[in-house]
Amino acid sequence: MKIESLTNNKVKTWNKLKEKKYRDETGLFLIEGDHLIKEALKRNLVVSTIGLTSDYDYEVTSEILKKLSCQKSGTNEIAIVKKIEEKEITGDNVVILDGIQDPGNLGTIIRSAVAFNIGTLILSQDCVDLYNDKVIRSSEGMIFNINIVRKNLKEIIPEIKLSGYTIYAATVDGDKTFDDDKKIAFIIGNEGSGIKKEILELCDKNITIKMNENCESLNAGVSASILMYELGGRR
Amino acid sequence: MKIESLTNNKVKTWNKLKEKKYRDETGLFLIEGDHLIKEALKRNLVVSTIGLTSDYDYEVTSEILKKLSCQKSGTNEIAIVKKIEEKEITGDNVVILDGIQDPGNLGTIIRSAVAFNIGTLILSQDCVDLYNDKVIRSSEGMIFNINIVRKNLKEIIPEIKLSGYTIYAATVDGDKTFDDDKKIAFIIGNEGSGIKKEILELCDKNITIKMNENCESLNAGVSASILMYELGGRR
Repeated sequence: MKIESLTNNKVKTWNKLKEKKYRDETGLFLIEGDHLIKEALKRNLVVSTIGLTSDYDYEVTSEILKKLSCQKSGTNEIAIVKKIEEKEITGDNVVILDGIQDPGNLGTIIRSAVAFNIGTLILSQDCVDLYNDKVIRSSEGMIFNINIVRKNLKEIIPEIKLSGYTIYAATVDGDKTFDDDKKIAFIIGNEGSGIKKEILELCDKNITIKMNENCESLNAGVSASILMYELGGRR
Repeated sequence: MKIESLTNNKVKTWNKLKEKKYRDETGLFLIEGDHLIKEALKRNLVVSTIGLTSDYDYEVTSEILKKLSCQKSGTNEIAIVKKIEEKEITGDNVVILDGIQDPGNLGTIIRSAVAFNIGTLILSQDCVDLYNDKVIRSSEGMIFNINIVRKNLKEIIPEIKLSGYTIYAATVDGDKTFDDDKKIAFIIGNEGSGIKKEILELCDKNITIKMNENCESLNAGVSASILMYELGGRR
């Protein structure tokens, strides 16, 4: 199908998917570029493709693509994609994010989580939206390669403790290494304020990355990645 | 001194420091907020302070502060700061960045470099400007706590090899651990294209972070941080 008008209804509807509200209503989101679309196709999540030729489900003008793109430089192709289904929490290593706000940090953490064989990534309800374009872009398509669930942490933490996970809080005053627990979930807190007090209280142990005293803390994406590296990459 | 006009010459001059050209010409840059200003004061780099009361060298209106700020939410105080002097390359662990373009990545790497006791950070001439406001902000003030130099890598690498450093290239096909070399410098390449061919040829060894095959690479700031953690944090 060929569309040439910027005010076409399909174009308007697609463009709305840039807003969380419409993504939540429809269960759909937008992705841009060859690499991401390939990853989504592998998972059978693509609803329709949009590009400059008749090879796509919708052939559109470069002005329409520019309008739909979230990047300054625009893009050559866009796909409308179904949100990824949340599965059960699995894996010996789980990461919990309590209020991560920066989309780049979340994307980076997703990318590292795949690299270091994390079974499940649990997002608190106040984390940035998973389907934010910057999250997807900085995940480099890895968003399609890991189980990510959004949960009420006060409910899910006691639940996974019962199923055998030891819960570590990443703080500034913990031990320098993980113990030899069979199943481990660690929590990374918000960029500014850290882990919420009521969540900290649910944790079994603290874990800290050893660092020079001139540096108070690391970037949240880096902290999470180093701890995942310790857990999933090394052990 | 009190300034109330947005078109005051001082205000205009300060505002120009948002551009690299003027930072290079004057050797000055702008920083915002209590935390950064404290770090700059510790190093005696502050030329003048600008804020809303007579406690500052320049008392200005909130409109002026808003104009000078690089942040959407504005700031309460700004300082004009001297660029940090480049010192000789020191330390047993050195990190070399070949063409890092993302200011957030550079800031993150600086922060991690302080955390993991890196002696010197060497930037190639095509790295993003160190005094870009996003670099400074994401370094969380750590820019004042480490020796950072900008060099022609083709000249400096042979030079530091002569002074005893073993040069590792962070690539996808190297060894998984650093050898027991006394002095180590590792190179992280550009976010998209990696390390330049002519720079790779100058390296002694390759180093790779072991990861799941579904993930092609890590974020550059994360890769650098994990290797620094291995070098400066662990050994």
